[in-house]
Amino acid sequence: MKSHTIHRTFNTERRRELIRITEDVQAAVDEAGISEGMALVGAMHITAAVWINDDEPGLHEDMMEWLDKVAPPSWMEPANEVARQLLPDPGDYRHHRGGEDNGDAHLKNLLVHHQVIVPVTDGLLDLGPWQQVFYCEFDGGRPKRMIIKVLGE
Amino acid sequence: MKSHTIHRTFNTERRRELIRITEDVQAAVDEAGISEGMALVGAMHITAAVWINDDEPGLHEDMMEWLDKVAPPSWMEPANEVARQLLPDPGDYRHHRGGEDNGDAHLKNLLVHHQVIVPVTDGLLDLGPWQQVFYCEFDGGRPKRMIIKVLGE
Amino acid sequence: MKSHTIHRTFNTERRRELIRITEDVQAAVDEAGISEGMALVGAMHITAAVWINDDEPGLHEDMMEWLDKVAPPSWMEPANEVARQLLPDPGDYRHHRGGEDNGDAHLKNLLVHHQVIVPVTDGLLDLGPWQQVFYCEFDGGRPKRMIIKVLGE
Repeated sequence: MKSHTIHRTFNTERRRELIRITEDVQAAVDEAGISEGMALVGAMHITAAVWINDDEPGLHEDMMEWLDKVAPPSWMEPANEVARQLLPDPGDYRHHRGGEDNGDAHLKNLLVHHQVIVPVTDGLLDLGPWQQVFYCEFDGGRPKRMIIKVLGE
Repeated sequence: MKSHTIHRTFNTERRRELIRITEDVQAAVDEAGISEGMALVGAMHITAAVWINDDEPGLHEDMMEWLDKVAPPSWMEPANEVARQLLPDPGDYRHHRGGEDNGDAHLKNLLVHHQVIVPVTDGLLDLGPWQQVFYCEFDGGRPKRMIIKVLGE
Repeated sequence: MKSHTIHRTFNTERRRELIRITEDVQAAVDEAGISEGMALVGAMHITAAVWINDDEPGLHEDMMEWLDKVAPPSWMEPANEVARQLLPDPGDYRHHRGGEDNGDAHLKNLLVHHQVIVPVTDGLLDLGPWQQVFYCEFDGGRPKRMIIKVLGE
């Protein structure tokens, strides 16, 4: 079994950002020199995520707006009554008592998950035609790391 | 390391459907001829999912109704005020500007995830007594693909 | 390829509980004697989860309160109007018709997922500085099982 590991650091300028990394994952598979196996792709932080979905800018805005409603940030005014009621009583995260302001980013990480496993067949990522891999930052503006681990033969 | 890959196409008649595939995954493991390893099971689309849960029809209805509230379809009237408020302002997905009507299916895919990894021990899926694997269609009525990739020895 | 499988039983006293298991996963990797590979960690039940996030008690309370709003338990009064509206009409889960009372635990399992894959590099879990692995019980007070399966070389 061959193994190849890459740690990549992101330094996003904005708090939230989606970065397409499909090509980075394929490059790691190429470097590993495997034809059959898988690539494990994961955020090494608890306020970011990795997901597979469409590369459509309108949809990306929809996703970010919706995530802010289901897991509302209390560092800004809730978007609507539903977002407000999803906050803890009496309205701010306990996690923020110590000076943190990223409670929502932890919840978003739980919701959309921090990792995906991409199957590799004949040396290529075995993805559907619209499946792209994204690193999803929910608490950026500082260095954050991601791991790509390729295992196979 | 042995490797065995199956691509299966679903052609659901309805827009949403849950299809039990535990037996298909076990069959793929049998064909692979491994005793120790894992089966990676994933939807190859961004509007479908694969999950492991109970095979109980009432629960399946609960799940689909609840998913429609947390990730509301704007191609039909929101089920209640909460579902309405979880839509993007002013009430329809940006993703629908280009004629698409499946924005909610993308969000459901993010929520419940497109893949599971089933451990294989002694040649059998190492699942708990109530764990069944399902392909979950959120935008059906057309051909959609799934991958089962077995890796092990 | 080496393989090492551990089944562990939890007997929580409370209905909901978070149990840190990072050290158990590392111990399984040590026993497996691999330097490169991965550890598959999964609940063997459909009303529990395994996630990777921060070990901060305030955040844990936030997570449990928020999960009760997004996937409300109907065996107790909904926390607020949003939680009430996320229940099925007319207000209780179909799953409860047969005497069950854990419909919400199934939905929480879908939301936060039952498994993670931890990459292993140089014999150690390749996690970020704040990443801890947790077993998350949503319907405890009885024996529940978890699997750790280590694969690698």
